[in-house]
Amino acid sequence: MGRQTRGVVEAARLRHMSDTPDSAVRQYIEQHRAAFLDDLADWLRIPSVSAQPEHDADVRRSADWLAAKLTETGFPVAEVWPTPGAPAVFAEWPAEDPDAPVVLVYGHHDVQPAARADGWHTDPFEPETVGGRLYARGAADDKGQVFFHTLGVRAHLAATGRSAPAVHLKLLVEGEEESGSPHFRALVEANAERLRADAVIVSDTGMWSETTPTVCTGMRGLADCEIELSGPGQDIHSGSFGGAVPNPATVAARLVAALHDEDERVTVPGFYDGVSPLGDEERALFAELPFDEKEWLATAQSHGTLGERGFSTLERIWARPTAEVNGIGGGYQGPGGKTIIPSSASLKLSFRLVAGQDPGAIEAALSQWVAQRVPDGIRYSLTFGAATRPCLTPLDHPALRSVVRSMSRAFDGRKILFTREGGSGPAADLQDVLGAPVLFLGISVPSDGWHAPNEKVELDLLFKGVETAAYLWDDLAASLR
Amino acid sequence: MGRQTRGVVEAARLRHMSDTPDSAVRQYIEQHRAAFLDDLADWLRIPSVSAQPEHDADVRRSADWLAAKLTETGFPVAEVWPTPGAPAVFAEWPAEDPDAPVVLVYGHHDVQPAARADGWHTDPFEPETVGGRLYARGAADDKGQVFFHTLGVRAHLAATGRSAPAVHLKLLVEGEEESGSPHFRALVEANAERLRADAVIVSDTGMWSETTPTVCTGMRGLADCEIELSGPGQDIHSGSFGGAVPNPATVAARLVAALHDEDERVTVPGFYDGVSPLGDEERALFAELPFDEKEWLATAQSHGTLGERGFSTLERIWARPTAEVNGIGGGYQGPGGKTIIPSSASLKLSFRLVAGQDPGAIEAALSQWVAQRVPDGIRYSLTFGAATRPCLTPLDHPALRSVVRSMSRAFDGRKILFTREGGSGPAADLQDVLGAPVLFLGISVPSDGWHAPNEKVELDLLFKGVETAAYLWDDLAASLR
Repeated sequence: MGRQTRGVVEAARLRHMSDTPDSAVRQYIEQHRAAFLDDLADWLRIPSVSAQPEHDADVRRSADWLAAKLTETGFPVAEVWPTPGAPAVFAEWPAEDPDAPVVLVYGHHDVQPAARADGWHTDPFEPETVGGRLYARGAADDKGQVFFHTLGVRAHLAATGRSAPAVHLKLLVEGEEESGSPHFRALVEANAERLRADAVIVSDTGMWSETTPTVCTGMRGLADCEIELSGPGQDIHSGSFGGAVPNPATVAARLVAALHDEDERVTVPGFYDGVSPLGDEERALFAELPFDEKEWLATAQSHGTLGERGFSTLERIWARPTAEVNGIGGGYQGPGGKTIIPSSASLKLSFRLVAGQDPGAIEAALSQWVAQRVPDGIRYSLTFGAATRPCLTPLDHPALRSVVRSMSRAFDGRKILFTREGGSGPAADLQDVLGAPVLFLGISVPSDGWHAPNEKVELDLLFKGVETAAYLWDDLAASLR
Repeated sequence: MGRQTRGVVEAARLRHMSDTPDSAVRQYIEQHRAAFLDDLADWLRIPSVSAQPEHDADVRRSADWLAAKLTETGFPVAEVWPTPGAPAVFAEWPAEDPDAPVVLVYGHHDVQPAARADGWHTDPFEPETVGGRLYARGAADDKGQVFFHTLGVRAHLAATGRSAPAVHLKLLVEGEEESGSPHFRALVEANAERLRADAVIVSDTGMWSETTPTVCTGMRGLADCEIELSGPGQDIHSGSFGGAVPNPATVAARLVAALHDEDERVTVPGFYDGVSPLGDEERALFAELPFDEKEWLATAQSHGTLGERGFSTLERIWARPTAEVNGIGGGYQGPGGKTIIPSSASLKLSFRLVAGQDPGAIEAALSQWVAQRVPDGIRYSLTFGAATRPCLTPLDHPALRSVVRSMSRAFDGRKILFTREGGSGPAADLQDVLGAPVLFLGISVPSDGWHAPNEKVELDLLFKGVETAAYLWDDLAASLR
């Protein structure tokens, strides 16, 4: 395609974008609302619990159901992709324009375990709608948020008169997210060509609250390690030897204590190298969020806050790298006392990483730091787990602006604020392997009860998700050019 | 008794002391050697394992056997003293002189568990003599060392022509030492009047080695505590909350790390208050011991030494107070990683104390120190175990000189060096409750295998113990005046 043709297409696309009749989208959604909810309920009835082997067949049935539904939605390609564990679903709907940007939507079709006995008021796998809320395991995490894309793309076509989406649309819906995505990266790597995209839309997160629509701009990465320290060949008498030989539990504790300085900054040399600073604009936008620290502490079940000096609680969990001890053990832990010097001790440490940090460099720095701190007479091993990179899309990224604009239209022109996600997820694998920016489009809210009894989705927000998805493809087609 | 009479008795006593014919003692011992060993073997055949309930009757039988044997030895009083656990044996042999000093000998008649399957070459409860060594559980710890006093006192009488010992001799042989002496202090307190003594001789320790006879001059005390730290109400997600709330495992580690400074000195304010300094003479005498650090490390099964700057390994374990972590635990300790902030963590700390330190003051200082170090948002409880006081007899104490002189005579005039015991024991209860100095007379050597398979006693040393005991009462009668 020549430059001139491209310009004409571009102009047509921009017209489409600005012309997309919001009322037509809303009307289409309203007309198909009942059928959409019936379909979603059918899917929610399949107990696709990836962590429980007795539900293996259900997870496969869930994948088959989704692939069939995506075919019915209009996707020319809808495949079940096997993995050594639970299958994923891949679907693809090329744009009319072969040069249209490619967008990959990510979600998952497996769910957390659920049983009436855990405190559910209804059967977790028999969806019920009460007061504008749809209760079922997976209603928010993540079937509801995957499924809004099916009605979204239909509304997009209906309102614009297109026969194919404005972008080359791909979907990858994995089946092992609730089990830690053990085969996801390999699946993405093996299918990198077919998954190639200019942007990734992750629909597996949420918004600040029912009344504060937000877009998430990134997730922290993760590096973790286990340190095994061994001292005496067996536990030895603290009377006969105490005060004269190195104690591996003391060494473990000293490592943990040395990890932070008095400002709760991580002391490992080079740890902050390359850290993407938090801009004034984003700090100001974070500060606009109606954050209630008391409420947040209640959610954390903590009795106080503590973190890096100079940053707020939200900044600490979203935008700053951290070091935490996840487990420590050594010596006698039973009732009463035992006067021994333990033979061994162990530590599990994890590091949340932010944009600009390289897990490999962090691991190398940590290895050196530990080596310098373990005294003679203590032997140790240091083992790293698989690291996850951080991902972050700058506030001014054109694709992010598209998501924000589309969401704002769905929310009647309201200002969209920004959040980040403190955790780490398979989104980073897509960013890594495909080299595409990752954007987050989620409409779930903290009260939805992910992983908890009585999970639900707010129907009003679910349809805002449908509507956002209906506006998004036109907008992205333009911004990603 | 008037001053003059006293002087006459004193003179007679001093004559007795200096005149005690060593050859008569040796001859008596030689004549009774076989019978003594037969009797000891009978006692060793009783498996008086206090830690194993199936041996409860054996422990009682052992007490009965000993009381009968002490009566046979000549003790006018020999009683079995019940406790809520295993019984002790008390015996008493008043001196002819009602003003003679009172000496209480301490030992125990219970033994560690033992089974062929643990690696014994012979039946642990069927004594066998091989190459001058008597193998049996309890041969050294502690039946052999209690029993040498029976022949010792007979030799003392025979050689001096007395019909009663030169001191008012008492014996207390407990039955729960290997189970931590749970009822010992209460027993001593309840019988403080009958146990009253001017000096306590503990025969439950050892010497440096076969070729280096030594006297132990003290034991370290012990204070211990458990600290439970609680943070979030349950384990929480380190992605969602990491870096923003206090982590109880981190706090536990920081407490442990803060316990020592860079010189490995304990940092708790006031910890060293009152510590009895190690004198130049004792340091010099310690340094005369043929200490082989490599060998010591092999015993400790440690790969290196570490301790308070400015002190040697022996000084560190014998004469300096210490702080050790005996156990630490918090968060996830299973295989692999788990990205949580633990809900709780716990610490077990113990402190070895030396003469001059008061366990109550140490506990108060530690309580304050912990309170200042636990941050907002972490709740904790601090529980102290029962403390044991340190005991130490100065090198120039007259009673200690008596022990040294008696031992030197038994060892053909050899120089006796000094050790201390790094551990803590019920001897401190005797010192505390009775207000008497504690002296140690033991002939066991490190190779005797206390608590291990193939426990033995060197017969040559066992009879040196008999001989030392035979000389001791005259010498003490003079020095304690």
